[in-house]
Amino acid sequence: MATTYLGTRHFEVELLEVDFGSHTVILNERDARELGLSPWSRVKLIKADRSIGAAIATAKTVVSPGKVLVDKSVAGELGISRGDSVGLRPIPIPNSFTALQKRLQGQRLTQEDMYLIINDVVDRSIGEAEIASFLVSQLFYELSDEELTYLVNAMVKTGSTIEFEEPAYDIHSIGGVPGNSKVALIAVPIVASTGLLIPKTSSRAITTPAGTADTMEVLARVDLTADEIKEIARRTKATLAWGGKLNLAPADDIFVNIERRLNIDPWHQMVASILSKKVAMGIDNLVIDIPVGKGAKVQEVSQADRLAGLFLNQASRLKMRLKIALTFGGQPVGRSVGPALEAREALEALIERRGSKSLVEKALHIAGLVIELSGKTPPGTGFEVAKGVFEKGLSYEKFKQIIEAQGGSPGVKPEEIPIGEHSYTIYSPTEGAVTHIDNAYITAVARAAGAPFDKEAGVYLHVKVGYRVNKGDPLLTIHSSSSARLQDAVSIASKYVPVTVEGMLIKLLP
Amino acid sequence: MATTYLGTRHFEVELLEVDFGSHTVILNERDARELGLSPWSRVKLIKADRSIGAAIATAKTVVSPGKVLVDKSVAGELGISRGDSVGLRPIPIPNSFTALQKRLQGQRLTQEDMYLIINDVVDRSIGEAEIASFLVSQLFYELSDEELTYLVNAMVKTGSTIEFEEPAYDIHSIGGVPGNSKVALIAVPIVASTGLLIPKTSSRAITTPAGTADTMEVLARVDLTADEIKEIARRTKATLAWGGKLNLAPADDIFVNIERRLNIDPWHQMVASILSKKVAMGIDNLVIDIPVGKGAKVQEVSQADRLAGLFLNQASRLKMRLKIALTFGGQPVGRSVGPALEAREALEALIERRGSKSLVEKALHIAGLVIELSGKTPPGTGFEVAKGVFEKGLSYEKFKQIIEAQGGSPGVKPEEIPIGEHSYTIYSPTEGAVTHIDNAYITAVARAAGAPFDKEAGVYLHVKVGYRVNKGDPLLTIHSSSSARLQDAVSIASKYVPVTVEGMLIKLLP
Repeated sequence: MATTYLGTRHFEVELLEVDFGSHTVILNERDARELGLSPWSRVKLIKADRSIGAAIATAKTVVSPGKVLVDKSVAGELGISRGDSVGLRPIPIPNSFTALQKRLQGQRLTQEDMYLIINDVVDRSIGEAEIASFLVSQLFYELSDEELTYLVNAMVKTGSTIEFEEPAYDIHSIGGVPGNSKVALIAVPIVASTGLLIPKTSSRAITTPAGTADTMEVLARVDLTADEIKEIARRTKATLAWGGKLNLAPADDIFVNIERRLNIDPWHQMVASILSKKVAMGIDNLVIDIPVGKGAKVQEVSQADRLAGLFLNQASRLKMRLKIALTFGGQPVGRSVGPALEAREALEALIERRGSKSLVEKALHIAGLVIELSGKTPPGTGFEVAKGVFEKGLSYEKFKQIIEAQGGSPGVKPEEIPIGEHSYTIYSPTEGAVTHIDNAYITAVARAAGAPFDKEAGVYLHVKVGYRVNKGDPLLTIHSSSSARLQDAVSIASKYVPVTVEGMLIKLLP
Repeated sequence: MATTYLGTRHFEVELLEVDFGSHTVILNERDARELGLSPWSRVKLIKADRSIGAAIATAKTVVSPGKVLVDKSVAGELGISRGDSVGLRPIPIPNSFTALQKRLQGQRLTQEDMYLIINDVVDRSIGEAEIASFLVSQLFYELSDEELTYLVNAMVKTGSTIEFEEPAYDIHSIGGVPGNSKVALIAVPIVASTGLLIPKTSSRAITTPAGTADTMEVLARVDLTADEIKEIARRTKATLAWGGKLNLAPADDIFVNIERRLNIDPWHQMVASILSKKVAMGIDNLVIDIPVGKGAKVQEVSQADRLAGLFLNQASRLKMRLKIALTFGGQPVGRSVGPALEAREALEALIERRGSKSLVEKALHIAGLVIELSGKTPPGTGFEVAKGVFEKGLSYEKFKQIIEAQGGSPGVKPEEIPIGEHSYTIYSPTEGAVTHIDNAYITAVARAAGAPFDKEAGVYLHVKVGYRVNKGDPLLTIHSSSSARLQDAVSIASKYVPVTVEGMLIKLLP
């Protein structure tokens, strides 16, 4: 069975009904020894023209010599079943080894270096230590403009791409502010109502209580295939889909996982993450929203300017037309936080043609910029065009078409959308003015309540910054499907006060 | 069975006869979901007063609800068996989270911060991404002197320690040069012959063809317990043991694994690795060997001076008496590379009271420095004292005692030590002088032949740099127990010429 030492050997596949969350295969100890492998060594598995990397584990009896026990994710990605023969060879030195060395030694990477790294990330020829080292190097030694372009190109090249027959427009928020996921539910239908193609794909929430995909999923299917997206976009000019099934720049999901664990978010990597998915999706014209303010990803306008510069520079290198909006991110957007609550708020605004200023104005501004990008209207007039579409109710009609095309019920009313039956309201302990609503604490409370996994969980804000309240007025209501999680959320909200009310009287002296 | 949400639950242990090479446990999907865990989340397992971290995998049928499938390493470290009840709780945010953040943001760590990181490394509450980020941060943002002391202290505190009743001496080479593992087999008996206590522990080879533990293991047991080391040291004044069973600064093994994969070796981490093991071993007086030269870890004397400065500074902070020898590391030490070949060469030198100059002189210098540290002899005279002991054959007598105490055959003759039956000799293609013997290529050839795992594998050098040879004279012989591996080694040796012979004639023109 053996071919050559350190070469490829063939093994019979046995399936292990386990999800390791990382590619893992189990070999008999004897086979591992013959291949010079010890537990945690990496191997390449080969089936026809596909190959992926995996870590190995060894066993004496669980798997017999000549067989390989393969977990769900490996079997799925490689498309192998029980009894198949699969090639397996050690990866003593991954292809990206020298390129990664260069970066860790403070040398610049070439396009080829970058491709080798990203390709090894995507096919799992390297593990999370190597991936973390690439990301951490960026904290201390930023990517150059050239390296960033190489990174975007490599991330696109190692995934699938989609093309449309007409120019494609899109909007994207760098995120981080709770309540923001619903903005797209208003802005996208406005843009599509003007006849522009806006096949929006978005991610699920990573660290916030809801991503646009989570919120849209309350109303319709979002796990669309590339063919479905193209077909729906042709009919309705818009999608509000989850990008996860499309294999667009798949390195990103792997990077995001590690970034989240290390709680790092290198800017260049963020720019690459956003632009690579848009390039892969065939987007030619893009509006990026950078929320700025306390508790947002970007705290100061000067920082936002620098980040915007990075985006604009790359967009011009990538021949993408780009506009950037800095928006106020110092408190949650609108009144609601969490998938179902946000879906309700967006739907209500579309139906009633009005809503929370921070939500509706933002959506109109973003949509207006897209319309300006198209040249349909001169710079500075997009907002009014968007407002006209919104106030005539055209965007609600368009939204219903999108919901229907994505398999939802277009006639659903906001109040029919179920929200968590367990709820708890926090009241103002004093008379005064709302001086601060903390993004991070609102996020923590909504996530503790179960969002985004529990779609009905979240926070409803009865007030916004600047409101005057009396003692005993409601400030916020927490919702959850689970009474235990509601308790958790309430205890977090009592420890970290998410809404600050300051009275006029600061102190009484005797 | 559940106690509180996100609290500790108890599970019944089932054993999985698999070695993942990393702590992994498998839970039923339902239990995982209830605990808010997904595959690759980390949990803490608790049994009585012990606890360790592990990554989780999930399964529908392989493990039933209420049970946890535990791999060998987890069961071993936690001391649990089938049917036991074990506590398990999620680690949503590891204790070291904020400390690691500080380092990645370019802030200095306190002693407490460092302890939290190292403790999470050792008990596996964090994964390899976090560990890699700590190491990579050092490449760009070196540890301060204070941080390095904190690191040593934390590495000692998170492991076991040994104490001796009299002052303990030791020698250590930072390594990297092939053939070096045998130096200690000569130097240690010399030191012990003068009555000083030298309980040497060493590691197995990481990237070289033989570590001192690998080479000594050819002659005797090296996997000694702490009690055995103390008992043998009391009787013979010396051990040549493997440190791996002693749990000395256990963070180091985990760091080394990641460093090897990333091919990085931050100096401060190396200093911490060496000094923490020595502090844990109760060593008060230490001589460190820094080989300098092409292909060694340190290429230039100026670099070596800087590294020596780091060691000396830390030693004074740790109240350890330290001398440092910079030695010539531009070619292999002695004639032999690989465990059995090196054991032969050391034994031969001890018996015959002479040997390769690069081996014997080095061993005498190192031993001499140790003797000087003791104050038994004035500075500058240690070499002569060591030479006297060596030439009188006292060190051979002492070595036999050590071999016997560690369960070997003291009467073994060099030629009785088996070496690989498959061998291949490379001859000089020309008349000339040996101008270079490449450490890296010699290492690659010896490891391809099977060293250090195949103890009989390695390389024997018939020449050293400066030797004059005729065409057809033997340059080196490769040994292996396996003909396939010998072939591999030969093919590497033909591609990367390990011994360079330069003739007088460079080129003939017509």
